[in-house]
Amino acid sequence: MLDKDISEPSYTRADHIRLTSHALDMPVKAPELRWFARSPTQRGPVIGTISDKQQRNCIGSHSGSYAVYRALSIASGRFQSNHRPNLHNTQPTHLVPPQDSWFAAGKIISLDPWGANIVDAFADYLERGCNIQPSIAITQAYLKLPEIHQAIREARLPVDGHFVKANGDVKVTKIAIDPVWYLPGLAQRFNVEEGELRKVLFRETGGMFPELVTRPDLKVLLPPIGSTTAYVFGSPADLCRSDVELTCRVHDECNGSDVFGSDICTCRPYLTHGIEASIKTAQNGGVGLVVYYRKEGRALGEVTKFLVYNARKRQVGGDSAATYFERTECVAGVQDARFQELMPDVLHYFGIKTIHNLHSMSNMKYNAITGSGIEVKNRLSIPEHLIPDDALVEIEAKKAAGYFSADQAKSEDKLALVKGRNLDE
Amino acid sequence: MLDKDISEPSYTRADHIRLTSHALDMPVKAPELRWFARSPTQRGPVIGTISDKQQRNCIGSHSGSYAVYRALSIASGRFQSNHRPNLHNTQPTHLVPPQDSWFAAGKIISLDPWGANIVDAFADYLERGCNIQPSIAITQAYLKLPEIHQAIREARLPVDGHFVKANGDVKVTKIAIDPVWYLPGLAQRFNVEEGELRKVLFRETGGMFPELVTRPDLKVLLPPIGSTTAYVFGSPADLCRSDVELTCRVHDECNGSDVFGSDICTCRPYLTHGIEASIKTAQNGGVGLVVYYRKEGRALGEVTKFLVYNARKRQVGGDSAATYFERTECVAGVQDARFQELMPDVLHYFGIKTIHNLHSMSNMKYNAITGSGIEVKNRLSIPEHLIPDDALVEIEAKKAAGYFSADQAKSEDKLALVKGRNLDE
Repeated sequence: MLDKDISEPSYTRADHIRLTSHALDMPVKAPELRWFARSPTQRGPVIGTISDKQQRNCIGSHSGSYAVYRALSIASGRFQSNHRPNLHNTQPTHLVPPQDSWFAAGKIISLDPWGANIVDAFADYLERGCNIQPSIAITQAYLKLPEIHQAIREARLPVDGHFVKANGDVKVTKIAIDPVWYLPGLAQRFNVEEGELRKVLFRETGGMFPELVTRPDLKVLLPPIGSTTAYVFGSPADLCRSDVELTCRVHDECNGSDVFGSDICTCRPYLTHGIEASIKTAQNGGVGLVVYYRKEGRALGEVTKFLVYNARKRQVGGDSAATYFERTECVAGVQDARFQELMPDVLHYFGIKTIHNLHSMSNMKYNAITGSGIEVKNRLSIPEHLIPDDALVEIEAKKAAGYFSADQAKSEDKLALVKGRNLDE
Repeated sequence: MLDKDISEPSYTRADHIRLTSHALDMPVKAPELRWFARSPTQRGPVIGTISDKQQRNCIGSHSGSYAVYRALSIASGRFQSNHRPNLHNTQPTHLVPPQDSWFAAGKIISLDPWGANIVDAFADYLERGCNIQPSIAITQAYLKLPEIHQAIREARLPVDGHFVKANGDVKVTKIAIDPVWYLPGLAQRFNVEEGELRKVLFRETGGMFPELVTRPDLKVLLPPIGSTTAYVFGSPADLCRSDVELTCRVHDECNGSDVFGSDICTCRPYLTHGIEASIKTAQNGGVGLVVYYRKEGRALGEVTKFLVYNARKRQVGGDSAATYFERTECVAGVQDARFQELMPDVLHYFGIKTIHNLHSMSNMKYNAITGSGIEVKNRLSIPEHLIPDDALVEIEAKKAAGYFSADQAKSEDKLALVKGRNLDE
């Protein structure tokens, strides 16, 4: 060892630490969860806080992957491990009322529809001292977006003083949603046995949460993954009304384009186009919804994504639409890990039954939405003038693979001719 | 139960699953890691793949929080659990050569500096069949940013044909970095015992990775958190040269502003201003660096962030600079969980010794950078005209709390007068 004093610390013996729990050992019964129950009292609150081990009725802890940072705060002495959040004044600016979809078996299994307003829904539990935390938060904001300012300048979007202010700011309701997985529902949706799902989730994450296997009585997992954010233009109360026009973009995170404007894909242009269309629909008496899912690089992460970019650009013949999907599979072992099957849960949280304008070319998204019982009236592909040159490879590959587009897909010969820039350009 | 058939599945018995491992039980010795060793062969590769349990020399698995999605892919049968990545053509477009900082005890403990070019660094291990995966990927791209196009239109930034093309696109090298935590180094940096750090990380995440306590011989953790991305304008080889001017912005994720342009904070304006300044420095013969850290909402997550927004806006007297920090602590139990102490590791990866222009007002960031041995010549606050009206609360609160600014902080009386919009406006 090069650095003796830091690599060989005095190590506290670990043998008094419980490595996992077992249902029969639990002295106090935690509040039971009846997932699709009609009332919050029947359903019960999801309790994932660490402070009251006996009350825990789920696996994992709150805030998705930020639980790791919270644990680090506690280890470094900056945070009281038994802190109880003061939820005064935090309640939603708009309350999403219970929808039939909340109680339909199997419809919502990756978020907790009662997670937004726990102060009212679980008042009796809070009074008895349960440490319950919200898994959804709803607020209001104004957006300043250069692409929207441009749309106003180019007279595609009028200033109306309500949805779009004189300075170009756009009014929005935003909803942050942490993942809450009901494991029997996940197993059913992926058509695997619940026990098998639990075993594989445990084993293939390198042994995360032994309670996945020792506590079959705990049916809910708070996984350490990113959250989802919904942006509503117009009245959120209109989302569940099939007679009100709904324009919707379901968008998977792409930090390189969404924030930095990388020209190899169409993510930010498609996103801001979806926002513009959503605002326009709100101005016309409808409602717009943009949902942002933290699933960077097809939920394979950005390291894998950049490795694939290099492999695409360097292959013999250069980056080509004909081999677009193949490259990801070579590097990552799978073309896509996004699980669009879970994506519509957010739509069902709002009680959406009809989407009049769906801004997405993805058949995976379309099939997941319609397969979950939501009607889609029109599908809209990204307008051609918004596609960066280097992103033609992606778009043509997707069209050839059967993604929806208003234009025709290219033949195999022509597909091979769609080429991206080389790495040295 | 409302839905018997999905909530009570036939459950596979779990008793043949190993809940954790113990050092003495390991039949084969995995490659040893000597963290600060001079050569990759001495250091050894970090092996976190699940396919070869015997070769694993760390806790957790690759790709940060995306490991959960990968596990779900395997559970649903879409992915071979024993897949080996084909790394052909994936190697970095620019190789970061080893720097003295890589070998200085304690300098780099939250990423693996050898993680970018494993194909060369660990060729012998790969030949022997070890399943090693890159934790860093480096590629090249062009950025299309509306704010940069505006800077060109307004003649603040010239088109030079190399850094900035005629169409306004900006050339960049980008580096994605997954977290790799050397636990003895983390313990030292936070001044806690390693055993205590391990116990708390295990307990306060709800029991994530029992190997944290059963395998004190495993010194490295791959935590399920977000990655970091560095964008370099100009030559990455110049980053380690103190005689070349370096402009730098270290930016913590704020999805609501970075992507959607929310007007309650200054995140995107500060980020794009930092990008513009970085490009300018590159055009003047220097180099620019923007590092993006996935630490949404002070690493407390977006749900907590929106709860705090509501509490700020609804408090008696309205949103006020005087009570800005207090509100976060009430709701979250801590003002900040970002651990700027880990942030400079990326700078040391590049061998940075001097930052000539640091675009950040944060004393936590400044202290972390200078405390880690990097000289900072100038600090630059965000220009006043870029601050949205509703973000004045944040900026004045920060100035009053001692954040760096070119302007003077307001007195306590005047601070109470800096008010944000109400929720119903």
